[in-house]
Amino acid sequence: MTSRFLLSGSGGQGVISLAILLAQAASLYGGHNAVQTQAYGPEARGGATRSDVIISDNEILFPQVLHPDVLVSLTNQACAKFLPLIRPNGIMLFDSDLVQPERRMDAHYVGLPMHREVVAKFHKTQALNICVLGVLLSLTKIVDVDAVRKCLTDKFKPAFHEANNQALDLGLQLGESVERVW
Amino acid sequence: MTSRFLLSGSGGQGVISLAILLAQAASLYGGHNAVQTQAYGPEARGGATRSDVIISDNEILFPQVLHPDVLVSLTNQACAKFLPLIRPNGIMLFDSDLVQPERRMDAHYVGLPMHREVVAKFHKTQALNICVLGVLLSLTKIVDVDAVRKCLTDKFKPAFHEANNQALDLGLQLGESVERVW
Repeated sequence: MTSRFLLSGSGGQGVISLAILLAQAASLYGGHNAVQTQAYGPEARGGATRSDVIISDNEILFPQVLHPDVLVSLTNQACAKFLPLIRPNGIMLFDSDLVQPERRMDAHYVGLPMHREVVAKFHKTQALNICVLGVLLSLTKIVDVDAVRKCLTDKFKPAFHEANNQALDLGLQLGESVERVW
Repeated sequence: MTSRFLLSGSGGQGVISLAILLAQAASLYGGHNAVQTQAYGPEARGGATRSDVIISDNEILFPQVLHPDVLVSLTNQACAKFLPLIRPNGIMLFDSDLVQPERRMDAHYVGLPMHREVVAKFHKTQALNICVLGVLLSLTKIVDVDAVRKCLTDKFKPAFHEANNQALDLGLQLGESVERVW
């Protein structure tokens, strides 16, 4: 089984950190192989931030994601750019307040008010990417939740542990509210 | 011109952050294309941290570094693992206190006491990766120094600006002390 993630948004939304967390949790804590990539080019200047993660139990021969199984878009600009790449039957996770995707692709559209819920709970947006990680875990079961908690505990200072766990729980709850059709 | 960097060390030395900084400075601020990758697999667990950066003015078709033009190794374990991959005439930058490389490859060996100098100046090691970045800029001229300063200013909070600039200057000075033979 190989899962290809394309995570996209604007600078400052923590997309790259999210990609690194997902790759490290899956590999160092979850026992899978993982590759995480980001490309910067003329198109990246002033545009959407993108980071790719591939998780597999086999060797990963080509580290770039051409067609994601799971696309995350946290801005309209990112969504417009990357939605055409999604695989048939892929999962398109977007922020339902910030993104209005065209519904013309053969994909499972999952819109959740992640940004709004994070601001309501924490009065700041720093934990948004951890919340998104929780949603991804809920939707894909790609990594064991306890492995992710261990990763978060090891990577962050103790002062962040409680908020990180709460943000992860928030994402898990939001994810559980989604009707599975895949 | 395409330059391939393999940056390696142990977890906590800031190798991944260094890779991201180098790629962003080169692309978003320096006008080049850049790809930054890290792979995590069974070999990554408990072993050396590695992150690859490719900087080019052409399109980057394959994002992984098989044979680096520039290898950075901040631990002996990383050095032993990755030194065999270096290109003929490549630059092997290592910490001269922490790493004792075998001298059997056809490479330019540049050993500098970066860790010791950073600790002497800042009484902590957080700025080590910025110092390494300064050395890399000095040795390769891959990105304009002012573009890197702008990148550091935009990415970090004001409280870090002075220390970051000092660490970059320290690296630039250390790099200038090296006799160029390439």
